This record gives sequence, structure tokens and C-alpha cells, in this order.
Amino acid sequence: MSTPPSERARVKRYHQIAEYDAATIHAILDAMPLCHVGYVFNGSPYVTPTLQWRDGDRIFWHGSSASRMLENAECQEVCVTISLYDGLVMARSAYNYNINHRSVMIFGKPEKLVDAEKETQLRHMVNRTIPGQWERLRPVKPQELKATTVLTMKITEASAKLRSGQPDDDEDADFPVWTGVIPVRYEIGKPEANPKNLPGVEMPAETAFFKIG
Amino acid sequence: MSTPPSERARVKRYHQIAEYDAATIHAILDAMPLCHVGYVFNGSPYVTPTLQWRDGDRIFWHGSSASRMLENAECQEVCVTISLYDGLVMARSAYNYNINHRSVMIFGKPEKLVDAEKETQLRHMVNRTIPGQWERLRPVKPQELKATTVLTMKITEASAKLRSGQPDDDEDADFPVWTGVIPVRYEIGKPEANPKNLPGVEMPAETAFFKIG
Repeated sequence: MSTPPSERARVKRYHQIAEYDAATIHAILDAMPLCHVGYVFNGSPYVTPTLQWRDGDRIFWHGSSASRMLENAECQEVCVTISLYDGLVMARSAYNYNINHRSVMIFGKPEKLVDAEKETQLRHMVNRTIPGQWERLRPVKPQELKATTVLTMKITEASAKLRSGQPDDDEDADFPVWTGVIPVRYEIGKPEANPKNLPGVEMPAETAFFKIG
Repeated sequence: MSTPPSERARVKRYHQIAEYDAATIHAILDAMPLCHVGYVFNGSPYVTPTLQWRDGDRIFWHGSSASRMLENAECQEVCVTISLYDGLVMARSAYNYNINHRSVMIFGKPEKLVDAEKETQLRHMVNRTIPGQWERLRPVKPQELKATTVLTMKITEASAKLRSGQPDDDEDADFPVWTGVIPVRYEIGKPEANPKNLPGVEMPAETAFFKIG
């Protein structure tokens, strides 16, 4: 187990499955683009799902410049959480039922990107899902960049939790019930072409390399 | 489109894909047990992933009685968000890239369940994933019930967002790039038996009916 970077980021419950090293945290971010951004507005908590991506030791997310989440998040404390559900752990007792999962919580105050960095990161967001796709697209327009806000934070105050494998309930080893794991995972389906595609346009071969994260 | 139950729950961005009716909201809760609970602690936002389940017009989630999330959530404002990532929408421009998704945000002040209701709901949580499993398990102990907190809220202040299908970018219809959707979804794998199972115990046939949600 590695060392928590702050008291806030220290995992309190099930701390035995906590990790704080960058490699573990980065791998979870790279495995799941969906994140949940928590922020406080008028004293109430809000949790908004959006896409995140990583570049080095920074996390990025984006949305409309008119978004409540993005306007309120800049220079305010946020908590960004990324979670993968990996399976149901069927133990001998309800108390030891569990889920296999990987999750990360990141705390901090995000900053807004300005024009050149914004375009660089939007390009990175597109090209990390389909290599080279940004260059195939209708070029981005200045007003589209203006209408898009990209926020970033350094991944400093962060923690991960990981649980895998069979139930931990040796205290009930003699109880005669089946135990095991039902694994679940995101599967990528066959691409569905838009019926409005122009005649002759082909799906880029790189689409085959699409990854969820 | 249905009517928002409160100003806070009114969807601001992409309001054209917002829904507020119970059937739509319930279906999303039932499709995804993983939820993200947002709460405020010492003025900072926290987003904790946990399992949720529904019974009628109420949502439930549980955890250790020593949990910071659960202790802080009772009688405090929370926002519980449930999200499914359904696919990547490849448009003709980066600006119109999108994700197909279903998500729900629920606002409110949760209440703690007391003993009889707590056991009823824990039983419901176990049996909704594998029918009849609660009755097969080593019976729950009083100290386990005591160590478990179950929170609930009525699903009143809630909104859903749903996006499906092909890109909306007819303004770029003449740009010669392939567009389409890459679908993604959770798949349930083959159950993996615990090597520590007693000889002769069998996997319940009902395991085959396991649903993610």
C-alpha cells in the first residue's frame, strides 16, 4: 500500500484495498472515460456525469461554456470520481456480499484551458478513442472552441480502491452454500454506420482500435 | 417531455433530452446498480460510488455504519447520480461528437432505516440480483445489521437524460467523413466458482437470471 497524499484523500473505509500510486490511478482513468464530477452550488451537492481523459499527470473534462457544472467548478473545490463495476461477489452471507470494482477519487480546484491548449486537448480526446480521427473531421471552428470549456486538474490529491477475486469469508467456510464471482464488463459492439453517410465514405480502419477508455 | 419537479432538478444543458417521468427514471435505476453519492463535508464535495437499489418510489443504498459518506449523508442534502455509457457517437465534427447515455440525478435528504425495514431492504438487495439467494445464505446476525447502515430517499426531485442513436449534424451533411455509433454495454460473464466451496455445493440455477441491475 502506498501513502495518501492528503488527509482528505486518505481512504477511511476498507483502507486495506486503497492505493495511492500514480500508475494504479492512471490505469483506472484510462479504463473508463465516464466520470462523475461533484461540486457545491448554493450549499447543495451536485454530481454530473461527463467524459474525462488524461494527459500525463493531469485529468481533463469538458462541456458547454454555458454549463452550470463547468462555470461553478472553476477555482472551486471539486471531487471527480471514476468507477468500474467488475463483478458481483457472492459470499456465504449477505454481510460479505461485495462488488469487484476499481474506483478513483480526485480532489482539487480545476482550471480552465485557454485557446491553444484547449484545441490540443480536444484533439487528444478525439484521437485517444479513434487514432487519427481529429484529422479526418470537419475542422473545428473558432466559435465552437469558444462554446466549449475544458477544465483540468493535476492528479495530486487522489486515491484508488480496487477489489477483485473471490469472497473473503473463511469464518463461514463450513456453511454449505455456493459462492463465487459473476464477472461483468463493458463490451464494445459492432460499429453502426449512419444511414445518412455520403455514398462511398468508409469507416476508418482505426475504428477497430476503439477502446472504452 | 415531462415537467421538472423543482428548479434544482430542472435540466439546464441539453434540456431537449431531459425527462422527469417516474417510469423513465425507474428504468435507469433498475438498469445500473452502481450510483455516485455526492455530499458536502467541511464545505468540500465528495462523490462516493456505491450500490443502489429501488423499491417502488424509493431509492436505497447501504454501507458500513462507520462510513463518512453515510454518517454525513443522513438528513443532509445529497445528490445521487446513476449513469450508463451506451456508446460513442462519431459525428462529422469534434463539436458534435457525443456519447449515447442514460443518466438520472436525484436530490434530497436521506433517512436511515431502522431494524425491521433494514433487514427487509437488505433481503431485497440480495434477492433482486439472484432470486431467492437471501434464503440460501448463512442467516444475518444482529451485529451485522447493526454494523450496516441503509439510507433511503423518495425519488421526488429527480431528472433523467437520455441520448441514443446517430449524430445530429445535418449542417455538415456534405462533409465526406464516416459517421456512426460504436455501441458499448455491460456484459455478464460466466460465473466463477470459489475454489473454497464445499464439495457438492451447487451453483443455484437462479444465478442464470442474474441481471446487472
